[in-house]
Amino acid sequence: MNTKTGLNTGDLEGSSVFWNERVRRLVPYMPGEQIRKAGIIKLNTNENPYPPSPKVIEAIKAVEGEALRLYPDPACTAFREAVAKQRDVKPEQVFAGNGSDEVLAFAFGAFFTPGCLDSGLSAPDNPLFFPDVTYSFYPVYANLWRTPFKEIPVRGDFSICADDYRGAKNGVVFPNPNAPTGIALSLRDVAGMAKMCAAQNKVLIVDEAYQAFGAESCVPLINENPGLLSVHTLSKSASLAGLRAGFAIGRRPLIEALERMRDSFNSYTMDVVAQAAAAAAVLDSEYYDEINRRVVKTRERAAAELSALGFSNLPSSANFIFTKPPPPLSAACLYALLRENGILTRYFDKSRVREYLRVSIGRDSDMDKFLEVCGSTRFAR
Amino acid sequence: MNTKTGLNTGDLEGSSVFWNERVRRLVPYMPGEQIRKAGIIKLNTNENPYPPSPKVIEAIKAVEGEALRLYPDPACTAFREAVAKQRDVKPEQVFAGNGSDEVLAFAFGAFFTPGCLDSGLSAPDNPLFFPDVTYSFYPVYANLWRTPFKEIPVRGDFSICADDYRGAKNGVVFPNPNAPTGIALSLRDVAGMAKMCAAQNKVLIVDEAYQAFGAESCVPLINENPGLLSVHTLSKSASLAGLRAGFAIGRRPLIEALERMRDSFNSYTMDVVAQAAAAAAVLDSEYYDEINRRVVKTRERAAAELSALGFSNLPSSANFIFTKPPPPLSAACLYALLRENGILTRYFDKSRVREYLRVSIGRDSDMDKFLEVCGSTRFAR
Repeated sequence: MNTKTGLNTGDLEGSSVFWNERVRRLVPYMPGEQIRKAGIIKLNTNENPYPPSPKVIEAIKAVEGEALRLYPDPACTAFREAVAKQRDVKPEQVFAGNGSDEVLAFAFGAFFTPGCLDSGLSAPDNPLFFPDVTYSFYPVYANLWRTPFKEIPVRGDFSICADDYRGAKNGVVFPNPNAPTGIALSLRDVAGMAKMCAAQNKVLIVDEAYQAFGAESCVPLINENPGLLSVHTLSKSASLAGLRAGFAIGRRPLIEALERMRDSFNSYTMDVVAQAAAAAAVLDSEYYDEINRRVVKTRERAAAELSALGFSNLPSSANFIFTKPPPPLSAACLYALLRENGILTRYFDKSRVREYLRVSIGRDSDMDKFLEVCGSTRFAR
Repeated sequence: MNTKTGLNTGDLEGSSVFWNERVRRLVPYMPGEQIRKAGIIKLNTNENPYPPSPKVIEAIKAVEGEALRLYPDPACTAFREAVAKQRDVKPEQVFAGNGSDEVLAFAFGAFFTPGCLDSGLSAPDNPLFFPDVTYSFYPVYANLWRTPFKEIPVRGDFSICADDYRGAKNGVVFPNPNAPTGIALSLRDVAGMAKMCAAQNKVLIVDEAYQAFGAESCVPLINENPGLLSVHTLSKSASLAGLRAGFAIGRRPLIEALERMRDSFNSYTMDVVAQAAAAAAVLDSEYYDEINRRVVKTRERAAAELSALGFSNLPSSANFIFTKPPPPLSAACLYALLRENGILTRYFDKSRVREYLRVSIGRDSDMDKFLEVCGSTRFAR
């Protein structure tokens, strides 16, 4: 694997004679641990600590056998109309999917130019650009669709610099705020990148999974920017990681491309229950604004306390903190220590970020326990 | 589009500058109409006329906010264990997905050798084989993954002849019973085709979507046949088209390939509600055996009455009948006449099948109304 530019060259060990080249070369995404154990404090996969809206539960309980017996609405109309209303766009500018991961999978397949599968490594002269420190599913999608990519280093302070993406000829994707750093990019910079991509007839995907916790959404820029796609999930800000619902907003040709991908893959990716629950969630913005304000308040308090303990935090606009423990305590050691204490966080053993730990924002009581373990290391040092 | 061999050459009209070659060349699947209107009799998409098991509804109502807040089990353990128990295989021989359509999409991507995307049309010397009269999603998947394919004509009586597949060097896929014919292939023939494919290190996918209504399942052949993959859906026999649940059974290397595809696309394709409901459905075989016996009984009665009206039916082992009205009544006319009477059926305006109508088996009262309209045409003739 060339981590700077290109595609996985393929570790064919452990493969089967029945696998084709594509499946051999895949480097699947590794999700964070999904442990179900009483007493575990789960700060490792950025779930919302508060339950979903009671209206979501009502919508689920209202689903009847007759609705389950029949195929769902392939167009996900009620969910898309709810999003359109809340985001002030037209329903036909909304694509609904099985989590933003699925939406991103279709978008990578539709917009970025692939190389030739037969030739193994693609010519790296026309790569997709994304940050070197970012959501680790992006290189996985690129490998799936055989799209050469280039990882653009974030700056020394871990910020994305829009100017660094000027050479992109095959589109750009990044999360805003970025993960796992939590750092947000200004809307002006996003607009500049969208214009630059569109000038090449290429798409800028802004992955707004964590947008509700502090970044400005690019959705208001959609109508002026034909190559801009804003991708959202209900997993984080709507407390619905278990439901698998996400959406994209963009101008009609982009949405139509996603529909073509879906209808060549699985015409119905959102079941009737998920569609009803997702629509109910989107319409209850009052409830979610309130719980997400609490998450942000807890984040600010936890960040201040970590700073007081000597930790270095990146400035987060998301529902997690990317934090560096004070030497000689390593992030890997702290990760293990927290785990021993029943607190799961996420550690990425990769260059540039292995000194940091990503900590999802839990309830205040969860963060107190987390901070207590962090504080206890002072005596050990 | 070369309908006999090869890939879509691409109708690029109506495309956008932002679309890549892949999305331009797609020829998406067109699902049957999903009309929701009181009084409509829906015999067009092979849904089960009876409601899902009460245990499914219970499982859905039992899902709590806490489960929705957290990511689902990516391994779909409870559902896979239920399938393993019911089908007498190991849980690790089961892959769970968002409907059999998604399972098939991953399988096409993992097992069949693609051509080169850059060169447009692939060399047709190594095509995937499937019947010319079959599930119309297969050429769509092949186009998505750029896999050349060859449509093998079914015999004059619309049966699949295993010998016709001897030249397959890139695998075979077919439904058993076939759709839209409803004709089943014997287990002996399936075993022969599996051996032939395995001898080429290629996979035979048997799409058993309608198996519960009369065909022998190939699952007992799995352990002896390393290249055999049996694909199932809960949409038809488990009355859960609205839930999006399906599974595949095969030996470990095949299942592992599907897992690699999923984990490069969307790690969680089944939400917590769907996983719980699907597990409950699979375990309540007593309920489903009973309703599916009723479907088969209604099918036999409807087929006999259609024959008495002069219709020619293909011998169905599925939950639909493929039937040819007596001349001068055309299938297209009968389709329109039924529609005027609020009865939806499925008509395929394609060579070899345009004289036939596919009629899903409804409740007895639905079929009576259908037969009444069919009978009324005698006076019009």
